[in-house]
Amino acid sequence: MPTPPATSGRLLYAQSGGVTAVINATAAGVIEAARAKGVPVYAARNGILGALREELIDTTKESKTAIAALRHTPGGAFGSCRYKLKSLEANRAEYERLIEVFRAHDIRWFLYNGGNDSADTALKISQLGKAMDYDIRCIGVPKTVDNDLAVTDCCPGFGSVAKYTAVSTLEASLDVASMADTSTKVFILEVMGRHAGWIAAAAGLAGEGTDEPPHLILFPERVFDEAAFLAKVKATVERVGWCTVVASEGIRNAEGRFLAEAGTRDAFGHTQLGGVAPVLAALVKEKLGYKYHWALPDYLQRSARHLASKTDAEQAYAVGQAAVDYALAGMNAVMPVIVRSSDAPYRWKVEPAALRSIANREKKMPRGFLTRDGFGITAAARRYLAPLIQGEAHPPHGSNGLPKYGRLKNTGVTKKLPTFEH
Amino acid sequence: MPTPPATSGRLLYAQSGGVTAVINATAAGVIEAARAKGVPVYAARNGILGALREELIDTTKESKTAIAALRHTPGGAFGSCRYKLKSLEANRAEYERLIEVFRAHDIRWFLYNGGNDSADTALKISQLGKAMDYDIRCIGVPKTVDNDLAVTDCCPGFGSVAKYTAVSTLEASLDVASMADTSTKVFILEVMGRHAGWIAAAAGLAGEGTDEPPHLILFPERVFDEAAFLAKVKATVERVGWCTVVASEGIRNAEGRFLAEAGTRDAFGHTQLGGVAPVLAALVKEKLGYKYHWALPDYLQRSARHLASKTDAEQAYAVGQAAVDYALAGMNAVMPVIVRSSDAPYRWKVEPAALRSIANREKKMPRGFLTRDGFGITAAARRYLAPLIQGEAHPPHGSNGLPKYGRLKNTGVTKKLPTFEH
Repeated sequence: MPTPPATSGRLLYAQSGGVTAVINATAAGVIEAARAKGVPVYAARNGILGALREELIDTTKESKTAIAALRHTPGGAFGSCRYKLKSLEANRAEYERLIEVFRAHDIRWFLYNGGNDSADTALKISQLGKAMDYDIRCIGVPKTVDNDLAVTDCCPGFGSVAKYTAVSTLEASLDVASMADTSTKVFILEVMGRHAGWIAAAAGLAGEGTDEPPHLILFPERVFDEAAFLAKVKATVERVGWCTVVASEGIRNAEGRFLAEAGTRDAFGHTQLGGVAPVLAALVKEKLGYKYHWALPDYLQRSARHLASKTDAEQAYAVGQAAVDYALAGMNAVMPVIVRSSDAPYRWKVEPAALRSIANREKKMPRGFLTRDGFGITAAARRYLAPLIQGEAHPPHGSNGLPKYGRLKNTGVTKKLPTFEH
Repeated sequence: MPTPPATSGRLLYAQSGGVTAVINATAAGVIEAARAKGVPVYAARNGILGALREELIDTTKESKTAIAALRHTPGGAFGSCRYKLKSLEANRAEYERLIEVFRAHDIRWFLYNGGNDSADTALKISQLGKAMDYDIRCIGVPKTVDNDLAVTDCCPGFGSVAKYTAVSTLEASLDVASMADTSTKVFILEVMGRHAGWIAAAAGLAGEGTDEPPHLILFPERVFDEAAFLAKVKATVERVGWCTVVASEGIRNAEGRFLAEAGTRDAFGHTQLGGVAPVLAALVKEKLGYKYHWALPDYLQRSARHLASKTDAEQAYAVGQAAVDYALAGMNAVMPVIVRSSDAPYRWKVEPAALRSIANREKKMPRGFLTRDGFGITAAARRYLAPLIQGEAHPPHGSNGLPKYGRLKNTGVTKKLPTFEH
């Protein structure tokens, strides 16, 4: 018989993995929903590490205005981390420590805001209640720019990086088009996505029709075919006058090697990581002789709150609110996911889904989203992607011309336990 | 005795060199001002090349709405080029061809929108009137993201790339700060500016105080000092927990070599250009062992109309309008420049300046704008830079989530002359 839900105690919220332009909107959703129900919220400093280290932040010390500002502030307001808990068998001490910290601070609900790995962590913690005789309800909250979480129709964080990528592709292409006669003919934009090509696919929204940019998209779902790539670049330059290529960082050659590792060496002779764009550019120059430029926006793409998708910002907030509702209703081992009921007009709602169907899975692009030649997106992909970048959510700007991003006090909670060596 | 100004005829407008987020706002200023005075405007396709090739565009075929949309559309609407005219002595045929084209199409005013080189071209053409017995008035119109034009207080195009750089530095730094405990500790943003560090300096507006990003700025005005760089990165990481570096693409070592050429080799073993960020990142990794990330936004920074500075967009429009006023008033060999009368509140106006005092010069950052250690900007630099990024000028967005950028018909004018081999 399940334990009845806690009626007092605190809720602990933690951010995990790579941050996004809207993960703090989720934090705002969590904190505002909990406040509305009179439940105090602690946040873990630097994700699960804060819970292990007993480095907790008391969000009740923050003003209403400061919490509201999280809705338009990028980065992770409480700090995030890349740290994966081992299994209960492999490192029982870590789980015991978590329960010890929860017990010391009367944490009854734990909300873990992250991607696949974090859903796995949340699932493990959700199972601790019975194993360690402590009533803890654990809810996973979706977040990842990669859009590779299972079950949910899309993932908060993705819509904004998708919008950034589509707009940047459009803008840079206007630049290239106007200079192509005497300058750059091939422009290569490298985007995130090591295993799934969702972000690269979103660049496809920049234009429609074969002559509009991007002319080629390179997906990690397809083996990189050098000959086909070069032939299409050449044909595009000859037909259009220039060519925009969007490349996922994760593309591999037929031997399964990342192109980004395919030979570029730094000043010390080490293989240089994290740049598939310069490798492709060198290939274009060597084999076709075209003048090129390339861009690698890296963190700029996932922190660009100034260009966030309104849809994404709203979904990020909504999953935070729903997570609190689920937790306080006594649910456990679930995640609020986005369910789409219509593409156009776009309609969506939030529903709970079991963490065990999400943890450690990876949603790749459906085969039907890529064109036959593998260099573009289909109408089905457009129907899926288009609503996710809709709407603007401009942050307020100061008189200094910069967005007015919030900053929390992040007041620490007094520790009650001895230091834990993890 | 000067020729009296033409009272009929056409005005020819051409865009030159690297385009910006607001060069089309200048085009809008030119065309709207000329229309108001009943003067028809032709535009040269791909800058001065269009004039040489007699590839002219009839802007009278464009609707009022289409011209107005140029105010918020990046890239170069008529095409631009990198092409420098030789001296009159070295290639008299080219100048004779220009006059021939002007004469064939009754071009009485020529407005050339560009940077240092273009001011030189404009100056040469302004002197043709006498030499070739044809009444042509030539006005240079300022444009460059590099902000290195002499005489003018600032240069249209710079304020927007400055804003993009400051905002991107701020946003990416929020990302890095939240992950630094277990992930990236050093983030390097490479920005444009081969000879002058204006764009890099603008990144300094992202924060104030020694602990706020960017923690180091690397200027082309200073020789790169590896030991001092590494020491400051290390001290910053130890004190703040992480470190943001903004590097101008043009930084050089003590031997005068571009760092971007200092050893990175592509897959074919060629020295790889255009990436100082990966060279610095490799250095940080090799010497300090910190995890790093780097970004190189390239064309994204100069085409990001979605994040344009309102001040910049207004100045770009104003110089276009003033250029038409000057031309129709019979002025020759001048450029409308921005004159600042007050930093705060920011006050500016447009005045004519002689092209001969602008052509082929390069305005570097004043010595007093760099901090003593050469890694930051001074209060004087802030006073100068701050007004230039003020105000937002959001383009209208479509229901598809993308900015509604304009597209012209660019109707060609029937050629009257034989082909010119240049």
